[in-house]
This record gives sequence, structure tokens and C-alpha cells, in this order.
Amino acid sequence: MNAIWNDCPTIAARLAEVEAILADSLGDPAYPLAAETRELVLSGGKMLRPAFVLIGAGFGPQERRLATGRAAAGSKIAHIAAAVELLHVASLIHDDVIDQADVRRGIPSLHGRFGTTNAILAGDWLFSRSFRLAADYASVKSSRALARFVGAICSAEISQDLSKFSFATSRRGYLRTIAGKTAALFSLSLHVGASEAKAGAALTQALRRAGYDIGMAFQIIDDILDYESDGETLRKPVGNDLKEGLLTLPLILALRREGAALRPLLTKERLDDATIALILKAVADSGALDEARLIAASFTDRARREIGRLPACPARDDLVAITESLLTRKY
Amino acid sequence: MNAIWNDCPTIAARLAEVEAILADSLGDPAYPLAAETRELVLSGGKMLRPAFVLIGAGFGPQERRLATGRAAAGSKIAHIAAAVELLHVASLIHDDVIDQADVRRGIPSLHGRFGTTNAILAGDWLFSRSFRLAADYASVKSSRALARFVGAICSAEISQDLSKFSFATSRRGYLRTIAGKTAALFSLSLHVGASEAKAGAALTQALRRAGYDIGMAFQIIDDILDYESDGETLRKPVGNDLKEGLLTLPLILALRREGAALRPLLTKERLDDATIALILKAVADSGALDEARLIAASFTDRARREIGRLPACPARDDLVAITESLLTRKY
Repeated sequence: MNAIWNDCPTIAARLAEVEAILADSLGDPAYPLAAETRELVLSGGKMLRPAFVLIGAGFGPQERRLATGRAAAGSKIAHIAAAVELLHVASLIHDDVIDQADVRRGIPSLHGRFGTTNAILAGDWLFSRSFRLAADYASVKSSRALARFVGAICSAEISQDLSKFSFATSRRGYLRTIAGKTAALFSLSLHVGASEAKAGAALTQALRRAGYDIGMAFQIIDDILDYESDGETLRKPVGNDLKEGLLTLPLILALRREGAALRPLLTKERLDDATIALILKAVADSGALDEARLIAASFTDRARREIGRLPACPARDDLVAITESLLTRKY
Repeated sequence: MNAIWNDCPTIAARLAEVEAILADSLGDPAYPLAAETRELVLSGGKMLRPAFVLIGAGFGPQERRLATGRAAAGSKIAHIAAAVELLHVASLIHDDVIDQADVRRGIPSLHGRFGTTNAILAGDWLFSRSFRLAADYASVKSSRALARFVGAICSAEISQDLSKFSFATSRRGYLRTIAGKTAALFSLSLHVGASEAKAGAALTQALRRAGYDIGMAFQIIDDILDYESDGETLRKPVGNDLKEGLLTLPLILALRREGAALRPLLTKERLDDATIALILKAVADSGALDEARLIAASFTDRARREIGRLPACPARDDLVAITESLLTRKY
């Protein structure tokens, strides 16, 4: 279990159940890469999205006075949480094929180990396991929402891919992309959990909005960290997005400030390490990271206000704790 | 509409409805490649799998005296048929990425036109559209079965990929692969249609078996045609499987007969056109194509016997017509 859950023992306990469901649903002996794919799924990702499903469910009328996920609906919710994590990992695996990434979650990626073919099929297999869990445990409404999410993330990924190495994305274009790529699933996770636990329409909508804002802040912070982490504390190396030709918020803002100095460094081809180091330094010197932090803070603040208006209950305490830990992290 | 349906006007009419549903469900303006993906889906595939869903449903108690799909459940069944076709095309698109194929259904493949990234995501998008239709229109049981199918096809594709260029597949291994790759979805289509139309357990099982045998015969014939078609009547060029390092039934049987002559021609690397021509000729001369035809005939005969035991009804007439047309085709 990822250390991020050290302060939330009830969530940690419930996530252990979700992990058991994941292990169980990926135990197909007929699938040649089942063991390797299962290993990746259980290799210590943060499990944020399933945690958000559990927390969302904690706002249901029966759960509100209990520690997260202690109600009768617990098993159903845990299975839906597992389905959400599978969707997430499936899209990561396909991402790695697209980005030709060799490392994922600190271990060699499926793509790196078994090649394009097997990584594509492993992603498809996880999608199929996810929809199977959804068919068994989720309402039609939630199943539809999960399927729609896959559509949204594909749209965001294609938009992102089409704009690679063009370095012409606007701030607005960037926000739209991360909305589809990250915020959509954070939002959906809280929403589906709340909806399945019958939390009521108003509360479900409020959680959906909070999830969106947490997701937006989370991704912006992730993108800032890619410009400033020392590469030891963060698992993925610094400058990774830049290497992939991906224009994220820090560089978008820096280009407005120091475009004349930065533009000549950005080429249509893969940037070499020396150029990347130059760009990282120029972005840091431009003050763009502070501006990006302000934009992240605007989402963080809105998320905090939305959470503050939710009814007080153990699930809200959990949501506060995880939100603070995610949105104030330095690595 | 593909010419294969000329003799089944009721199926052709119902498939036009399925095509309208497909066009409608792929009309997402937010998805950047929606138009291109829709074009591929509607570009004149045989629509065999959705037709089998419709035919399976024709064995339901209310439908049995009607022309295929004329009953009240028609719209539900047509949507499920569309979901099945989307699964099929999604797996074809991912296949094309895996095989680096540039042409699909006579038009440049998505992979050829838009690259690996967009083809992976287009496949994912179609999976999501398919599961969305299933969530809306199919029973939990059918949705599960569709999800399970994606798992089965991934297993078969991985097994097939792992054995590429090894030229060591046995006849049994080959039959297992095509069972997952082709027969599973033929079988599932008839099964899901019958089950959704409440045809009863015995009839549903009988249709499932018939679909399996039709699918096995269909794929063996396809693989034979890849060794003997002149490349003008069949849309895909001859010797394609061999080019991909794929060992199919004709070569498996020829290796038993003329292994000493054939083995030296088979290398671990991509075969050149001259070598492929030599192999094609050696396989034809060995008598292996006739032996493969006998094996196809054993599945065809079993399918005919199973169909003969089904209750007489318009759907059975359709099933006989399409089975004869598929299993006696020369191109």
C-alpha cells in the first residue's frame, strides 16, 4: 500500500480489500500475461481513484455515520472501485505504448518488457475485466458513466497527441486536456461512489465538482513537479513531459514571459538532454512555476470550499486528509 | 451493405437499422477522429456478427413466427448487435496496429493513416462505445459475456503473437487460437441474441454450438483462401498470414507432408516475396489444401447438423442461407 494512506487507516484497510478483488479478477489462467499484468496493477500505485469511489460512497445516508465503507454496500462499492482502477491502469498501459515509455510505477513497463503487441492487448484485457466488474456490480447509470469516461480520455489523449511538438497549446487547451485526462476520472470516482450509495442528487453533484477541482489541481501540481523535482523523490524523471514533446502549464506560462529566449530551443524533434536542461532552467528563472502554482491554488481553494460545504462525516474527514496530502505535496 | 446479404432481404433491412445505430453512436463531436472511425466501421464489412445476433434473437418465442427481428424487442436487439460489431471492429483496429497493417476493408487502415497512437485510442473509443450500448440495452449476463469475449480474444491474440515466426504451432494450437480469435464471437453473437430474446436455455446452447462450428469453418476457409486466392477477388492480398509470420492450417499440414523441403524456407525474419511465392506453391503441391478443406468440412457438417435440429422458423432459414454462403465461398 502506498505511503500516502498512512494517515487514513480506514481507507488503507478498505483499499486492501480492493486490491484483493483486483488480484482475484486478474487471476485468469488462460490469459498468457495475467501474472505480469496483475503485478503491474498491484505494484503500489496510489490507488487514488478507487479511494475516491470509497469516499464518495461514504456520503450515502447509511454510511455517513460510519467509517468509510463499513456499511452493507461495502462489497459492491469495493468491486466498483476495483473496476475504476482497472480502467485507469488500462489507459496507463496504452499511454506507455503511445509514449514508448519503458518504466511505469518504478518497474519496467509492459511495453518495455513485452513489446507493443502485448501491451495493447494487456490494456484491452484490463478494459474487459473492468467492464465485467461494472456489469456485475454497478448500476446501468454507473456502467454508462465508466464507458463514457473511456471515450473522454481517448479524446483528451488524441488532442494531446495531435499537438505534440507543436508547442502551440494555449492555457485553455492545456486545461481542457487535463480535464479529460485526469480530472474526469477523479470526478467520476467520487460521483459513482456517491451515486451507488444513494447519496442524493445534490450531494452527488457537489462531490463530482469537488473531484473535478481536486483532479485539476493534482495534474497541474504533477506538471509543475516535472519541472522542478530532483528526480530522486519523484519516481518519474524530471523533464519527462518535455522529452515527449508535451507542452504543459509551466512552459506555456514561461513562453508568454520569455518567448524570445525559449522559442528557439523548442524544435519539432526529440529534444536532447542539454536542451532540456536549458529549458528547465529558463522556465524556473522566468517565474512561470510560481504563476502555475497560483493557478493550481485556485483549483485547490475551490475544492476546499466545496468540501467545506459537504455534510460533516467520517468520509469528509478522509476527503480533507487526502486532498491536503495531494495538493500540498512536494514530490 | 455487403453483397453477401443479397439473398437475405430481411437481414439486410435489419442490418441497415444496425448501421444507423452505429452511425448515431459514433457521432461524438468531442472525439477528434470520430468521423474517420465511423467511416471505417461503416465501410462495408460483412456485418456477420451483428447478423448472427439478429438471427439468434429470431429463435425467441415471440419472434419464431416472424421474419428476423420484426418483434417488439427489435430495437433492443439491434442495439446489442451494434455493440457486438463495435467490439469486433475495435479488435480489428488493434490488430492492425499489432500487424502494422496499412489496409483494412479495402481502405487505408487507421493505423496507416493516423499512426499507432490514434489507432490504439480509436480502438479504445470503440470498446467504450460498445460497452455503453451494452450497459444501456443488454442484460447483465450479456454484458458480462461481451466483456469476457474481449478477454478471450486478447488471450488468443497473445498466444498467436508469441508463436509468430516460430513456425512450431501444432494443429491443436492452431484450432485453439482460431477458437478464441473467430469462433468465440460467432458463437457469442448467436448466443447473446437468443438469450436476450428469451429463446430458452437448450436452444440458446444449441445456437452457441452452431455458432462455434460456423466460426471454426469460416476461419479455416479464410486461411485456405490466403493460400490460393488470386488476390483480385479477396480484398486482402494472398500470402498475408505468411508475411506476418503466422502459421495457419495449410502450412501446418504441409509441414507434416513436405517438412524437409519447406523447413529451410521458413526463417525467423520477414519472408521476402520470392520465398513466399515458393512456399505458396509448395503448400499447394503438397495436397495440404485439400486436407485443410476436409477439416473445414468436418466443422461445416457439424454446423449443418446442429442447424438441422433447430426448430424450423424464418430465422433458421436465414441461418442456413448465410452459413451456406460463407462456408462454400471461393473468395
